[in-house]
Amino acid sequence: MQWSELDQQPCSVSRTLSVIGDRWTLLILRDCFLRVRRFEDFQARLGVARPILADRLQKLGDNGVLTKVSYRQKPARYEYRLTQKGLDLYPIVMAIVHWGDVHMSGEKGRPLLHRHMACGRHFDPVLVCSECEGALDPRQVRVDLGPGAADSSHMPIDLPRAADDGPR
Amino acid sequence: MQWSELDQQPCSVSRTLSVIGDRWTLLILRDCFLRVRRFEDFQARLGVARPILADRLQKLGDNGVLTKVSYRQKPARYEYRLTQKGLDLYPIVMAIVHWGDVHMSGEKGRPLLHRHMACGRHFDPVLVCSECEGALDPRQVRVDLGPGAADSSHMPIDLPRAADDGPR
Repeated sequence: MQWSELDQQPCSVSRTLSVIGDRWTLLILRDCFLRVRRFEDFQARLGVARPILADRLQKLGDNGVLTKVSYRQKPARYEYRLTQKGLDLYPIVMAIVHWGDVHMSGEKGRPLLHRHMACGRHFDPVLVCSECEGALDPRQVRVDLGPGAADSSHMPIDLPRAADDGPR
Repeated sequence: MQWSELDQQPCSVSRTLSVIGDRWTLLILRDCFLRVRRFEDFQARLGVARPILADRLQKLGDNGVLTKVSYRQKPARYEYRLTQKGLDLYPIVMAIVHWGDVHMSGEKGRPLLHRHMACGRHFDPVLVCSECEGALDPRQVRVDLGPGAADSSHMPIDLPRAADDGPR
């Protein structure tokens, strides 16, 4: 498989990575959720080369994740804002932040704390089941073929293993 | 900033991307959660060049995400299994899957459905607040400097904006 074929794969991970699977792209999205909107601000914060930044912003626009909004007429200036499709990336960004907070923080602790304005407290993000609201443990999840499956090539391999043996 | 400096940044996104920010790595991790454990199986499913696969598996081992377990003595054969640090990547993988399911599925629908064995139903993953259990909306989250912050360079930019204006 070539990377250019990623968005053709019948796999939701591959298709998502065809949009966000570039590391600069994920750092740009992190900054979008920190309310960064302008080219010069992204550039100053990330220290990324301007042609790379322009390319990644263009691709996020082409994919409907960001929208370009004029904020000044003369000279013309634009901001990049998250669309709803872009805002829906928040669980991905927060899950990445949280894993880093837990497993990669140095001795001093977390660089940033997140406050949930609805309850006023610093929080950790928790992934739960939409049906029973229980926290999701990978050992408690199985997959079935969905309507968009091309074949069973993405299904788990049926390896002999103990009954209580999960995905490790 | 160079990519080799990523794990030195006081940012949990950068540090996480220093471990998983390679697209092959994320596809390998997807397969780990589908119970793939053996080199030949990863290779056959992903169609990735063997030296690249060997490199990514080695790096995931070096970072404590996978552990190499012998399953046969003569000839020596090994499996790659997720450690607890690796299992903790599940919310990232599931958030990526879910965004792809919602925004990138074709006309036929989702390639795979996920069943939560605790309640028996097909589910969507939902990211909630650890404190109030409410679903997390990015417009309802603010950040504060944490103990591990080097400076305020990762804090949001204070742009003039309407009071109800969120991170878009």
